[in-house]
Amino acid sequence: MIKVGIFGATGYTGAELIKWLARHRQARIVFAHSESHAGARLSDVMPCLFDLPLVQADDAPLDQVDVVFSCLPHGASAELCKRALDAGKRVVDFSADFRLRDAAAYAEWYKHAHPYPELLDEAVYGLPEIYRRDIADAQLVANPGCYPTSIILGLLPLLELGALADPVIIADSKSGVSGAGRKPSQTTHFVEVNESLAPYNIGHVHRHVPEIEQELNAAWRGDGDSGSWIVDREEPAHDPRATIHVIFSPHLLPISRGMLSMIYVRLTPQAAAQDWHAIFTQRYEGEPFVRVLPKGQIATIAHAAHTNYAVLSVHPVAGMPDRLQIVSCIDNLVKGASGQAVQNMNVMFGLDECEGLR
Amino acid sequence: MIKVGIFGATGYTGAELIKWLARHRQARIVFAHSESHAGARLSDVMPCLFDLPLVQADDAPLDQVDVVFSCLPHGASAELCKRALDAGKRVVDFSADFRLRDAAAYAEWYKHAHPYPELLDEAVYGLPEIYRRDIADAQLVANPGCYPTSIILGLLPLLELGALADPVIIADSKSGVSGAGRKPSQTTHFVEVNESLAPYNIGHVHRHVPEIEQELNAAWRGDGDSGSWIVDREEPAHDPRATIHVIFSPHLLPISRGMLSMIYVRLTPQAAAQDWHAIFTQRYEGEPFVRVLPKGQIATIAHAAHTNYAVLSVHPVAGMPDRLQIVSCIDNLVKGASGQAVQNMNVMFGLDECEGLR
Amino acid sequence: MIKVGIFGATGYTGAELIKWLARHRQARIVFAHSESHAGARLSDVMPCLFDLPLVQADDAPLDQVDVVFSCLPHGASAELCKRALDAGKRVVDFSADFRLRDAAAYAEWYKHAHPYPELLDEAVYGLPEIYRRDIADAQLVANPGCYPTSIILGLLPLLELGALADPVIIADSKSGVSGAGRKPSQTTHFVEVNESLAPYNIGHVHRHVPEIEQELNAAWRGDGDSGSWIVDREEPAHDPRATIHVIFSPHLLPISRGMLSMIYVRLTPQAAAQDWHAIFTQRYEGEPFVRVLPKGQIATIAHAAHTNYAVLSVHPVAGMPDRLQIVSCIDNLVKGASGQAVQNMNVMFGLDECEGLR
Amino acid sequence: MIKVGIFGATGYTGAELIKWLARHRQARIVFAHSESHAGARLSDVMPCLFDLPLVQADDAPLDQVDVVFSCLPHGASAELCKRALDAGKRVVDFSADFRLRDAAAYAEWYKHAHPYPELLDEAVYGLPEIYRRDIADAQLVANPGCYPTSIILGLLPLLELGALADPVIIADSKSGVSGAGRKPSQTTHFVEVNESLAPYNIGHVHRHVPEIEQELNAAWRGDGDSGSWIVDREEPAHDPRATIHVIFSPHLLPISRGMLSMIYVRLTPQAAAQDWHAIFTQRYEGEPFVRVLPKGQIATIAHAAHTNYAVLSVHPVAGMPDRLQIVSCIDNLVKGASGQAVQNMNVMFGLDECEGLR
Repeated sequence: MIKVGIFGATGYTGAELIKWLARHRQARIVFAHSESHAGARLSDVMPCLFDLPLVQADDAPLDQVDVVFSCLPHGASAELCKRALDAGKRVVDFSADFRLRDAAAYAEWYKHAHPYPELLDEAVYGLPEIYRRDIADAQLVANPGCYPTSIILGLLPLLELGALADPVIIADSKSGVSGAGRKPSQTTHFVEVNESLAPYNIGHVHRHVPEIEQELNAAWRGDGDSGSWIVDREEPAHDPRATIHVIFSPHLLPISRGMLSMIYVRLTPQAAAQDWHAIFTQRYEGEPFVRVLPKGQIATIAHAAHTNYAVLSVHPVAGMPDRLQIVSCIDNLVKGASGQAVQNMNVMFGLDECEGLR
Repeated sequence: MIKVGIFGATGYTGAELIKWLARHRQARIVFAHSESHAGARLSDVMPCLFDLPLVQADDAPLDQVDVVFSCLPHGASAELCKRALDAGKRVVDFSADFRLRDAAAYAEWYKHAHPYPELLDEAVYGLPEIYRRDIADAQLVANPGCYPTSIILGLLPLLELGALADPVIIADSKSGVSGAGRKPSQTTHFVEVNESLAPYNIGHVHRHVPEIEQELNAAWRGDGDSGSWIVDREEPAHDPRATIHVIFSPHLLPISRGMLSMIYVRLTPQAAAQDWHAIFTQRYEGEPFVRVLPKGQIATIAHAAHTNYAVLSVHPVAGMPDRLQIVSCIDNLVKGASGQAVQNMNVMFGLDECEGLR
Repeated sequence: MIKVGIFGATGYTGAELIKWLARHRQARIVFAHSESHAGARLSDVMPCLFDLPLVQADDAPLDQVDVVFSCLPHGASAELCKRALDAGKRVVDFSADFRLRDAAAYAEWYKHAHPYPELLDEAVYGLPEIYRRDIADAQLVANPGCYPTSIILGLLPLLELGALADPVIIADSKSGVSGAGRKPSQTTHFVEVNESLAPYNIGHVHRHVPEIEQELNAAWRGDGDSGSWIVDREEPAHDPRATIHVIFSPHLLPISRGMLSMIYVRLTPQAAAQDWHAIFTQRYEGEPFVRVLPKGQIATIAHAAHTNYAVLSVHPVAGMPDRLQIVSCIDNLVKGASGQAVQNMNVMFGLDECEGLR
Repeated sequence: MIKVGIFGATGYTGAELIKWLARHRQARIVFAHSESHAGARLSDVMPCLFDLPLVQADDAPLDQVDVVFSCLPHGASAELCKRALDAGKRVVDFSADFRLRDAAAYAEWYKHAHPYPELLDEAVYGLPEIYRRDIADAQLVANPGCYPTSIILGLLPLLELGALADPVIIADSKSGVSGAGRKPSQTTHFVEVNESLAPYNIGHVHRHVPEIEQELNAAWRGDGDSGSWIVDREEPAHDPRATIHVIFSPHLLPISRGMLSMIYVRLTPQAAAQDWHAIFTQRYEGEPFVRVLPKGQIATIAHAAHTNYAVLSVHPVAGMPDRLQIVSCIDNLVKGASGQAVQNMNVMFGLDECEGLR
């Protein structure tokens, strides 16, 4: 039985994590933390049926757990992750604090120096579809962002096979409101969101951009333990010195949860001749939580909502053989956060990767 | 041309008022006030196309207007209404500050002494369907609350005719989220509201209770200038010493705007024999903004949304002749606030009551 | 391992049943039926990830199952339930076909003679909170309607203790759209439902009325195996010849799933002096799927959505000691249909009642 | 006073048209047609307060009107438009029947031969921002589709100035459900749409593609009376023989009305050096119903909903000077249908173009 501690239990990802762990037969929650609601129970703080007591950080019995999940926002999270690591515990961090490998990039995008740059090398990016072997051994797993999860999984086979003629990819992404967190703001007021659709942080300025581009370029270069999935992979036809960029356009959708990325790429002539539906299907064949829909079906948020699956569909463009569209859907709270964290925990502790998630 | 000033222009009722006034051919906005956004323009503060500059209260040119609308919350509103009245201006106040005639009741429900109790006698309750003649002469109109508007209009004919056997009325009301104001809070966060329905302040404790009961009892006693609509009104069969009470249950609906009150009453034997659909139709025949639906149709929020109409339907209960249900729908931002305020302004200034509202 | 067959797998309750059974460790789906989609797979018919093949009724291998769930609408369901019973199988029927004990009432409300009136005596009303012992032995379980489940559970302690001064109860109920079924109609078109709230079948004419009143009166008379929960139950203070009636007002809510009933009762003087929160808590103490919220909290649909719980809150009315309000929330697809059906299956087969449902 | 007849009054565009005409001071509805609901009144058919009687086509008094709006679907519309034209009436057709100039393209995309190909030359594409002068004289105006309106207005300045380096444009569009019409279908069932986002007809196969490409290429070639807006327009830098293509991805949004197109283009080196926000602002300066937001603001559906405005925002991409994003929002029922039709009527009859629309 894996003993679990949770930092930041009263946000949407924290509550979702508790729900999935409640179904997990080999995990037990030892503590749930909330600084602002310490002393209350979870069901006092949100309409739910879990009566977990909430403790403040200094009272969290770190010595009694095997793994700590931190569901805190970036900045606040690094601090408590460090404390857990120092106590010898394994950590899955939901924040962006350990996702970027480059401390300078972190400082540029998050506007403050990274407090523990020495941990960046140690941290493993927690996307099992790429880094499963590293995750198994990791002390610190940086659970991916929701947008990056949907976009990276939607592009992985294309990058690994060097199929892009244009290094600029367009990802038009739409997310449910829980992705913006539980703290009230004008932006998340019901009346502002409802019956609208609002793009935000467009024009290559959203903080998920460096995370997405870091991983797209890693796949492009053939990093990751997934590079070997096609044994007879030839030398890539592309110039390995090219850098992948993404024009990433997030939108706030008037739904609670779920995310859809519509991805547009331009293929090399060689790639344009291939059956990408078949290649995607082959690439993800053994993946328990990636589903490529049959030809003719289009992925929707309804396919993925309340599940840990990334649901993909692959679409050629009539009359334009060098163009391809991929639809990639996840639930931002599950595969985009808490479900993926449980999946990572399962990998870290050698459990069935699907335990608690189906 | 009526010159208009607006206090509190950046809330939902303020913005809605601006929209309706923009269509009004005999009104012109002279100033729009916002203490927190002074210096900005309305379109900087919300997604709209009105470029009105926003001024702080001390810069509002009160001397240049004929009428002031105050869309501020209770407490804050009384102060600025007083300032406008002192400047000799006519005032329509959206807040609860001048709706209760009894300063003691105000103090009890709003937890602070009324700052200007001497104004309570002077204020006219701004429901034209009851107090049209008084409104025409009023210097200070207390624009009714949204819940009270829907409930009072749904009961008026029954009360005026003394039809109730049980002085306790049940009003099960459901409101869109704009009724809770524009200030962000946990309660109005999209994810908390969406895909749910949340009763609140149930059990006779909501602040609209004294306002509703004040007006129901006034109608029950035959106050108001509307009492004469049936010339041959007999002596009421009921005990005039009885006091009407309402069990009022507000719910927060996952929609932006609109309100529905389902009202349940018990009829006297005499009243049970009458055709209440016909009586309601007759009562509201000359009212420009009350519509009684034909028999067989049921009022829905869609009927009333984005209009200044109260839409009613009247329903006997099969097998229980002494019971009656009334459905009363309004748009909380229009007939429940800004539209009714414009209607009151039209009455105050002797204009066509419908100008700008159809 | 219980082997399960499903008639009518492509509606919302069928798909929901499949989802819950997929998590159940002691049940396995042997066939899923759809007359109109026979030959396709479930994932062709709706956005889901279950690849179950769909068979027509004549091809359903009834001999290979232990229990049949029929998720078909009334009328169509009786036929296939009869076939399964004749094959010696146990049946849980989601339709209204076997809920009324009185064939004449069935004929009156459903406008056609009951095809198998001899089965009505045999059928057990599948609300475990009342009929657990009978369900355990039943061959045919009539799974309750969603509205009746929410209303009966919200009233049970009051009826069992004879607490009502007025035999007329008001139940103002609001349901998500999945309760109306998956077949397209004008009423369930997105644009008609969205941003509105629509009462329907009000005035004591909805088909759930006789089902609700049948069970409320049974509880009032002290039928059911639950009557003994208070050992020292005195002779009821009420006139046992009185008949309970419900003024039931259903509304269509713009949400996908979930239901809230706001229930209003009038108490006897004796009952008015009691602590009903405590009594409700005591009554449901051992019930795995009924939760009475702590004093001060109000049940919302968010509490119950996606769970098999009925979530209740009990509210006195300030200043009116003889009045009580109860809020009762369920997920219409879970405790109101498929979850309750699995709960019934668990009871019928002597499994842990909670298996697969937590 | 313009006398108006309406074919197809009971769909969403028909009902919306009636609402806008009700506010128009120089138009009067003479008849409203519905084949399936002839004999009823509009308020019997939908929750609204307009009591217009509905007539069948053969009873429509064509001789008493000045202009006919046809809100019927393609195929059905051509027939009644022809009848009105033969009666000497001016016609605004909401359907796609007269939008394509090429009968062969119509046959290819709509799968049947055009019934009146001789009318295609005569029809004017009803986008006043391009064809205002032709509309003024037109007997038959083909009111543009909603998607085309949003996309064409978002690209017009770029095309007119020959600014594109890549003739393939990406338009990722999201529409409210009223765009799918009022006829019930599985696709528009509340539960299928709600809490999801569903791309459809992606991959260059949607029927709006030929309409969009027809008009984009016309603007690219310099057709239209708007070509002269920059007097010193140089010879276009682009190859005039290139053909513009659009990768158009429509999505069904869980909202009732409103549409957002996110448009991605690649600029020529010359164009990359220009201030496109300034150019868009200049281009649309005199346009009463196109609004370019100030720099720093992003257009949302809330900006345009319930108005006749197209609301645009223009966004460079950080670090990629040759890329530009344009956000273009309209209300699909207003600027995308009924409002634009009234605007066209105003132009056709020499009225103030804004009458009834502000």
